[in-house]
Amino acid sequence: MIAVLRLGHRISRDKRITTHVALVARSFGADAIFIPTKDVKLEQTIRSTCQRFGGNFDIITGVNAKKILKQWNGTIIHLTMYGEAVEKVIDIIDKTKDVLLIVGAEKVPRYIYEMAEYNVSIGNQPHSEVAALAIFLDRFTEGSWQKKQFNGALRIIPNNQGKHVVSEENERA
Amino acid sequence: MIAVLRLGHRISRDKRITTHVALVARSFGADAIFIPTKDVKLEQTIRSTCQRFGGNFDIITGVNAKKILKQWNGTIIHLTMYGEAVEKVIDIIDKTKDVLLIVGAEKVPRYIYEMAEYNVSIGNQPHSEVAALAIFLDRFTEGSWQKKQFNGALRIIPNNQGKHVVSEENERA
Repeated sequence: MIAVLRLGHRISRDKRITTHVALVARSFGADAIFIPTKDVKLEQTIRSTCQRFGGNFDIITGVNAKKILKQWNGTIIHLTMYGEAVEKVIDIIDKTKDVLLIVGAEKVPRYIYEMAEYNVSIGNQPHSEVAALAIFLDRFTEGSWQKKQFNGALRIIPNNQGKHVVSEENERA
Repeated sequence: MIAVLRLGHRISRDKRITTHVALVARSFGADAIFIPTKDVKLEQTIRSTCQRFGGNFDIITGVNAKKILKQWNGTIIHLTMYGEAVEKVIDIIDKTKDVLLIVGAEKVPRYIYEMAEYNVSIGNQPHSEVAALAIFLDRFTEGSWQKKQFNGALRIIPNNQGKHVVSEENERA
């Protein structure tokens, strides 16, 4: 299991970024996202995507972050620009264990750095937790997200010149 | 040269996402970002990052997108969930030519699909233009962003347990 813990989500400021974090988690092979801030609208947005595009992905908001961290039976990895380079760390992480990936918004409390087994950077330049999560999951899953079947009611057929969307109902017709 | 054209930026709605797009462009090896919407504050934010963390990266807002596209002397690539899979396309793109990468916000006008030589998807699931840009640049630069030297006044030293930031002034002292 791969889960993401999104810290520091403020509803008005971060709604779009946290939506992107959750959609990236889903698309690149994570199974769930936990968000301490209760945000019913965000839950609805992500569940609506899952209903239309398929896949098993959970979103739970309003969680207790410390409790999740303490009870996590697996590896805890914090993605931060201050961490060790992903290209050095990725091969030593035990991929048979469950992984909890922490991504922050702005300031992340000190205890996160301490509770994480690995503090991992995707480059040591300031950029984006959305990009950091995507690159980490790409490396961690060895690109297997590219082959994942979501079996959704809506499917997009790759196309070099426009949009080709197939819906279950069209196929039945 | 690698440039990014960010379409559909609305200042109030997208300021954080477009900031992430610009920072990802800079961190993952692009040279410039063009944004049709004039946004002085966004320019200041990105230039401030460049001043502190180094590297040559330009941001120009208030551009004419159609003019840039018509005058572009190189390859135009549009990143879209409807496009062809990046893993199929990446090896046939001529890497000796300048590249203009287009990333949209929500709806992208039809002419973009037509003017792009390649419409490329980073998976055919809905996720994020921030993640799509990062993964595309990672593939396109063959991970060379990981070794790029920015030579900024501020440098982060990779660390598994906390923050280690070196500033030019500290080093001189």
